[in-house]
Amino acid sequence: MSESSDQIRSEMVAGMIDTGRKPNRRQGTDTRTGAELSDFCRRLVTRRSDPIGTGRAAQFTQAYQTLTAEQRGFFFDRLLEDYAPDSDRIIAAARAYKENPGFKTHRSLAKAVEAPRQNLFRSINMAPGGTSTLVKMRQHMLELSMPQRVRLRAVEHDLKEVLRSWFHRGFLHLRRVDWDSPASLLEKIITYEAVHQIQTFEDLRRRLEADRRCFAFFHPSMPHEPLVFVEIALTQGLAREIQPLLARDSQVAGGRDIDTAMFYSINNCQTGLRGISFGGFLIKQVVQELRQELPQLTTFATLSPVPGFQSWLGQQSEGSVSASPIGRQAMRTRQELQQHGDWYRNAEVQQSLQLPLLRLCAHYLLHEKLDGWPIDAVARFHLGNGASLQHMNWLADTSPRGLAQSAGMMVNYVYDLGRIEKRHDQYINKGEVSVSEVIRQLAAELAEGQE
Amino acid sequence: MSESSDQIRSEMVAGMIDTGRKPNRRQGTDTRTGAELSDFCRRLVTRRSDPIGTGRAAQFTQAYQTLTAEQRGFFFDRLLEDYAPDSDRIIAAARAYKENPGFKTHRSLAKAVEAPRQNLFRSINMAPGGTSTLVKMRQHMLELSMPQRVRLRAVEHDLKEVLRSWFHRGFLHLRRVDWDSPASLLEKIITYEAVHQIQTFEDLRRRLEADRRCFAFFHPSMPHEPLVFVEIALTQGLAREIQPLLARDSQVAGGRDIDTAMFYSINNCQTGLRGISFGGFLIKQVVQELRQELPQLTTFATLSPVPGFQSWLGQQSEGSVSASPIGRQAMRTRQELQQHGDWYRNAEVQQSLQLPLLRLCAHYLLHEKLDGWPIDAVARFHLGNGASLQHMNWLADTSPRGLAQSAGMMVNYVYDLGRIEKRHDQYINKGEVSVSEVIRQLAAELAEGQE
Amino acid sequence: MSESSDQIRSEMVAGMIDTGRKPNRRQGTDTRTGAELSDFCRRLVTRRSDPIGTGRAAQFTQAYQTLTAEQRGFFFDRLLEDYAPDSDRIIAAARAYKENPGFKTHRSLAKAVEAPRQNLFRSINMAPGGTSTLVKMRQHMLELSMPQRVRLRAVEHDLKEVLRSWFHRGFLHLRRVDWDSPASLLEKIITYEAVHQIQTFEDLRRRLEADRRCFAFFHPSMPHEPLVFVEIALTQGLAREIQPLLARDSQVAGGRDIDTAMFYSINNCQTGLRGISFGGFLIKQVVQELRQELPQLTTFATLSPVPGFQSWLGQQSEGSVSASPIGRQAMRTRQELQQHGDWYRNAEVQQSLQLPLLRLCAHYLLHEKLDGWPIDAVARFHLGNGASLQHMNWLADTSPRGLAQSAGMMVNYVYDLGRIEKRHDQYINKGEVSVSEVIRQLAAELAEGQE
Amino acid sequence: MSESSDQIRSEMVAGMIDTGRKPNRRQGTDTRTGAELSDFCRRLVTRRSDPIGTGRAAQFTQAYQTLTAEQRGFFFDRLLEDYAPDSDRIIAAARAYKENPGFKTHRSLAKAVEAPRQNLFRSINMAPGGTSTLVKMRQHMLELSMPQRVRLRAVEHDLKEVLRSWFHRGFLHLRRVDWDSPASLLEKIITYEAVHQIQTFEDLRRRLEADRRCFAFFHPSMPHEPLVFVEIALTQGLAREIQPLLARDSQVAGGRDIDTAMFYSINNCQTGLRGISFGGFLIKQVVQELRQELPQLTTFATLSPVPGFQSWLGQQSEGSVSASPIGRQAMRTRQELQQHGDWYRNAEVQQSLQLPLLRLCAHYLLHEKLDGWPIDAVARFHLGNGASLQHMNWLADTSPRGLAQSAGMMVNYVYDLGRIEKRHDQYINKGEVSVSEVIRQLAAELAEGQE
Repeated sequence: MSESSDQIRSEMVAGMIDTGRKPNRRQGTDTRTGAELSDFCRRLVTRRSDPIGTGRAAQFTQAYQTLTAEQRGFFFDRLLEDYAPDSDRIIAAARAYKENPGFKTHRSLAKAVEAPRQNLFRSINMAPGGTSTLVKMRQHMLELSMPQRVRLRAVEHDLKEVLRSWFHRGFLHLRRVDWDSPASLLEKIITYEAVHQIQTFEDLRRRLEADRRCFAFFHPSMPHEPLVFVEIALTQGLAREIQPLLARDSQVAGGRDIDTAMFYSINNCQTGLRGISFGGFLIKQVVQELRQELPQLTTFATLSPVPGFQSWLGQQSEGSVSASPIGRQAMRTRQELQQHGDWYRNAEVQQSLQLPLLRLCAHYLLHEKLDGWPIDAVARFHLGNGASLQHMNWLADTSPRGLAQSAGMMVNYVYDLGRIEKRHDQYINKGEVSVSEVIRQLAAELAEGQE
Repeated sequence: MSESSDQIRSEMVAGMIDTGRKPNRRQGTDTRTGAELSDFCRRLVTRRSDPIGTGRAAQFTQAYQTLTAEQRGFFFDRLLEDYAPDSDRIIAAARAYKENPGFKTHRSLAKAVEAPRQNLFRSINMAPGGTSTLVKMRQHMLELSMPQRVRLRAVEHDLKEVLRSWFHRGFLHLRRVDWDSPASLLEKIITYEAVHQIQTFEDLRRRLEADRRCFAFFHPSMPHEPLVFVEIALTQGLAREIQPLLARDSQVAGGRDIDTAMFYSINNCQTGLRGISFGGFLIKQVVQELRQELPQLTTFATLSPVPGFQSWLGQQSEGSVSASPIGRQAMRTRQELQQHGDWYRNAEVQQSLQLPLLRLCAHYLLHEKLDGWPIDAVARFHLGNGASLQHMNWLADTSPRGLAQSAGMMVNYVYDLGRIEKRHDQYINKGEVSVSEVIRQLAAELAEGQE
Repeated sequence: MSESSDQIRSEMVAGMIDTGRKPNRRQGTDTRTGAELSDFCRRLVTRRSDPIGTGRAAQFTQAYQTLTAEQRGFFFDRLLEDYAPDSDRIIAAARAYKENPGFKTHRSLAKAVEAPRQNLFRSINMAPGGTSTLVKMRQHMLELSMPQRVRLRAVEHDLKEVLRSWFHRGFLHLRRVDWDSPASLLEKIITYEAVHQIQTFEDLRRRLEADRRCFAFFHPSMPHEPLVFVEIALTQGLAREIQPLLARDSQVAGGRDIDTAMFYSINNCQTGLRGISFGGFLIKQVVQELRQELPQLTTFATLSPVPGFQSWLGQQSEGSVSASPIGRQAMRTRQELQQHGDWYRNAEVQQSLQLPLLRLCAHYLLHEKLDGWPIDAVARFHLGNGASLQHMNWLADTSPRGLAQSAGMMVNYVYDLGRIEKRHDQYINKGEVSVSEVIRQLAAELAEGQE
Repeated sequence: MSESSDQIRSEMVAGMIDTGRKPNRRQGTDTRTGAELSDFCRRLVTRRSDPIGTGRAAQFTQAYQTLTAEQRGFFFDRLLEDYAPDSDRIIAAARAYKENPGFKTHRSLAKAVEAPRQNLFRSINMAPGGTSTLVKMRQHMLELSMPQRVRLRAVEHDLKEVLRSWFHRGFLHLRRVDWDSPASLLEKIITYEAVHQIQTFEDLRRRLEADRRCFAFFHPSMPHEPLVFVEIALTQGLAREIQPLLARDSQVAGGRDIDTAMFYSINNCQTGLRGISFGGFLIKQVVQELRQELPQLTTFATLSPVPGFQSWLGQQSEGSVSASPIGRQAMRTRQELQQHGDWYRNAEVQQSLQLPLLRLCAHYLLHEKLDGWPIDAVARFHLGNGASLQHMNWLADTSPRGLAQSAGMMVNYVYDLGRIEKRHDQYINKGEVSVSEVIRQLAAELAEGQE
């Protein structure tokens, strides 16, 4: 770190400590005044059209990287207080607009409304690596304790809006990831894979063989950092179970018989971009890439978990909810699950649980909503993309996580390009989801109290 | 153009024609209703998180390219009227904010204030080539007749703001342009060079020899389109005249004697990005590149025109202005210039004009202001960047343009990296400009009425 | 040039001057002894497995570039005399082989036979730019006066063999040349185009429009130097005239009607690689590229000159040759051509010449041979590649060169991929050429004395 | 595999089986005649200037890949017999040369001497992947049983000569290998590392950290296949022990203290290029790269095994050799080594062995020769490159291999760029090796019989 960034770091930290507004001022630390910090930040902002700003932004990103969590907290507080929009100015501009709505009054109001920290964030972006520093900064904000997050939500929101304008779909590049990709990139894929974990390069290698595909989105300012990636298995017919796909020693499928692309894992990589969605774009662009490369493909589908199912089941077993018939059924089934730790290995128990669980799960996927959309995050994502819920697969993921979250079930969402648009419209406009008759029937049976 | 983009084009145009609000509806044209257009645009906007949107955006950009100027006018009117912010919603949100200023009310107000067309512009960006379509679209807006421009200024402003957020300094790449660059790029350099025109590739070639440099900024979404470029001559000592630098047969300077980098031409390439400034960044980054490549360089300076001088001189000769002593001096000098069409070739006339013109020009550069900044656009740019005005060069550009605009004068602005920051600050904060003693003296002489 | 390469240059030159074997020793020049030169070269050779050799090879290539033509002559003489194979050793090794033909004696003989200068050439190749220095060196040898060339033919032959082993088809890369290619490459295309000259970049540009193609072969060691390139026009039907193809303002052909690829110019670029043939490979690989890119293409043909026709016609008019009936016809026709300087503009003369010239040309192409192959170099090339002679086009090239060499005629050779192999075999094995019935008939008419 | 390559494969194999010269003709196999094979090969050769040849070469490489070891043996026999040089023609050409040595007779003799199979090999090179097929083919030849290898040595030699002309130093590219290299390349590094084995990507990763370097040579025709690579550790002072360098958890050295580059592993990757040496070039070019990147480096040295030491020690203990004083000392020391299986862990035994082993090893490195050069392959390589033998390190490699081959010793060869050339000359011309006084003294003590 250069002298200058050392100094800036001191300014940042010292300034925060000495503002007098913080109760946790500690004896013995740097006693320089907060004026230094505001000086520093003010200079960064005012000089945005000045290349010296580029140099200072570089010093800032270097300094930021050395901050402790506590120091970052101080810094975020400064962003909250010193770079907030000016309430009086907003109110005055709004009054002028109300009196005479027009181009100039609107522009003044828009300027007054924008928080000065948005400009500060843009200034930081001038540094080499500035974009990823800002993504990291938002990650740090999202990892704060809940009270801090609530207090700082305006800062985090402003940063998110700046990032959203930059990480626009139009700027993302799709790249295939394969065994010829840099080892440093593959290492990140290993790290970011959260759905079906990868232990070693040798594990990963199976997922990059001739019958597999992996694609990721990248942004030009972070060319070495995948934003989101998807893993695909090329199969004959729909895959209904996950473990065979993941097995390191499974046979590589031959070219001729392949007719289906199974999307079995999709992962967002950057916590700092949470809420800025890429996944839907990725799946649909990858479908187009695959159709081009492999015209023999007729089916594009996922093999997905039902990650919120067990948790929902648990909630049904508590308190007043269970007063309803569905609640009672949920409670009964859950009790049976809990009695038998290894229920899925016990043929008898397993069989007795199969139908109740399938019915409950069908109901959960179809009828349990949050703000009008499916409560299950994965269902919400795929159905919102215009996919259709086709199959429920019993004992399709017997990994510990698969059992704990989804009671071992997996489902297939099918992307039928010819119908995606219409389904997306129906979903958005009428809340209708596309689902196979069998699953609809299973949900209906539960409602009718069948056992 | 595909069937679909044909259809969209019809929707766009027909829709505009049939809204009933336009007086210039022509018989015999497409009679489909405006509903189609609004349908089209609404779909484009609502589907922004939907990759189908990518396809429709692509159809849009194809259709847009086929519009006539008149059809574009219709389209811009639609953007003005149908995608304006909702005034009532803004006023309601402002009231809520005033009653209870906080995160949520502020967020609601910000949302209400943002014009929906900004979102439409972002949707268009999903198309391949979407970014350059939007840049072109703003160019089209700026090329409208003045009454149209005034009426559509809100639309143009919104588009500018969206473009500004994307064409941020942090996303630009500096690339050297040389004789190994693609011919298609060099052809653009020839086209965009407006300061000292280039006729042919052979002309350009001299400007890319071993003692010359050319650098340009590019954006990742428009990799083949330079945004701004600068041409540099490596010389021994400051260059004080332009024609020797431009001569196709001038000798290529040797490596050892070079100590100065003369920035003799800087050009913005994209009309559609007017007002989003890159030039200052470019100069300063190029200075850093050159210092790295050629450590023997000690001076970085421009050889610049004074493009507003003659025009200012003319204004002084009109009406009441000339009542002042300076006005009278200006008038006298201008009359003499006009009497002698080829004054610069006539040794006697030339000598008698030299001192008055130098004094007037010094005064013009130092003391004539607009909104507090130098009235001369080139002076405003370089002095604002923190450069210093070092020399005035008599009969330094005797090209027709040089005589007509700058009375044949050119000036040297010097970029002294060690002082740029301080000078920039003094300029911004106190309006002080850095200027050599000789020039200051010349301006003073004029004020004192010396002849 | 560094001190060291200066010194080597002196060694090379001085050494040559002072060997005492040259009569043209001049007074006053460098007097260092030839020992220095042989020292230098010996070191270069013995150290071939030594990276220091890389450095010395670099010094050699730098020094070589500064040699005058005379100095190069001295150097080549040294290669002839000091790096010749050892005759006694060859004879001894041959004797040993004769007595006992086997692996070891054969290997010894092969070693004895190889000239040590081949090894020297390989050593030079270790330098950066070594390969192109060697290509340039062979060019220098081929540009010597005839007596010198004859004397040095062994040196030139050895260099050719080394170059042939490196410039093997398997190492060449095909690259498309278009308007996005580096200007420095396009400038070389302009320079090397010898068939139908290009004056400026603007001329060239027409040849790179959407209905044109240009491809070149490159070698990895000379990535910026095309070895051979071909220019193609995409047309509807066979092109039978050249001027419309070359006109800068000709209309760009539309995509739908195109069914033919006309190869209208093929140029070798490197004199130093003369006799190492790439053209046939280039045409056939380009045919494959075009078939892939444009499946609608049905015909691949050339529009070629008959460059030796007029020269052959002249020879027929001299001495004893003209005693034959064909000779007499040739003489008569030639006289008429010479009487009418602008015969091709005079409708009457032109018509009276048409049939005799077509017959003579058909005969020339089909029956005039050198060492069993067609005497016309272009015919030999294309027919040897397995193409078929399809059309003769009257007044198809009325440029000065076209008239002077080919009497204004051009011919179409057709590459029919399905038959190339068989035709190549028939040509190689039986000397048969593939020709259309019309042309065969024209030649027969001449033989039968028809007028 | 296409139909055509199937057919060729049949031709190749069937032809071999049916020549009648092979005793191992099996019933029931393909009965097509050898004429087919020779047909196939003859066509491949004669068409070398014919692009159809490119296609057939591609079919050949595909077919070759499917051959069994036995079928390859047949094929090599055909190369031996059908593509040998013509003995009678050689003898006739030699006679003509003897009678009249000159350009033409020499050229005829050279042509007669060259085996036709060299031309066949060049034809194969026209195929995509032809070069690596030929490298693989030579590997197959070198892996034959000894009697076969001896019989086919002429074929193998001819292939080697062709490969040597292509894999010339001037055509190789140096590339750095690091953690951003393709995983497929790193996997090859893991596979080819034979000196100090790498187990997993995680192992390899430590060897690519900030204080390590890895460089490899590549050929343009095999861009994904390293030919030779070297691993380097950047250290403070000479490294004298190997295990600390290899430990996965060793600390990464800081930038400031580094002054030494230790070459601790160099590996040839392509068995098919055995005998075509790249290692010396690689080390010296890497030294230059490192000096450029890290000017603070003052020492370039190896940490090398003495791989032939124990084997030599064993030979001294047998038969008549041991009659000499050195032989007796060797025998005694070896016996002691063998008595104590874990001698290096036993402080007493270890100490008693140290001086005798160091003396024997010094003697072995300095005075034991084969054809005049050091008998130890590693010593021969580095001393031949002009390096100097600086240190012997006791118990520097206690891995099983290190103990078994080198008795745990490692040595440092130092590359002193300023002296490499002189040392190389002394080595080549006088057989002198550069060695430190201490080591010379140790060897002398052995000769004097000290104990």
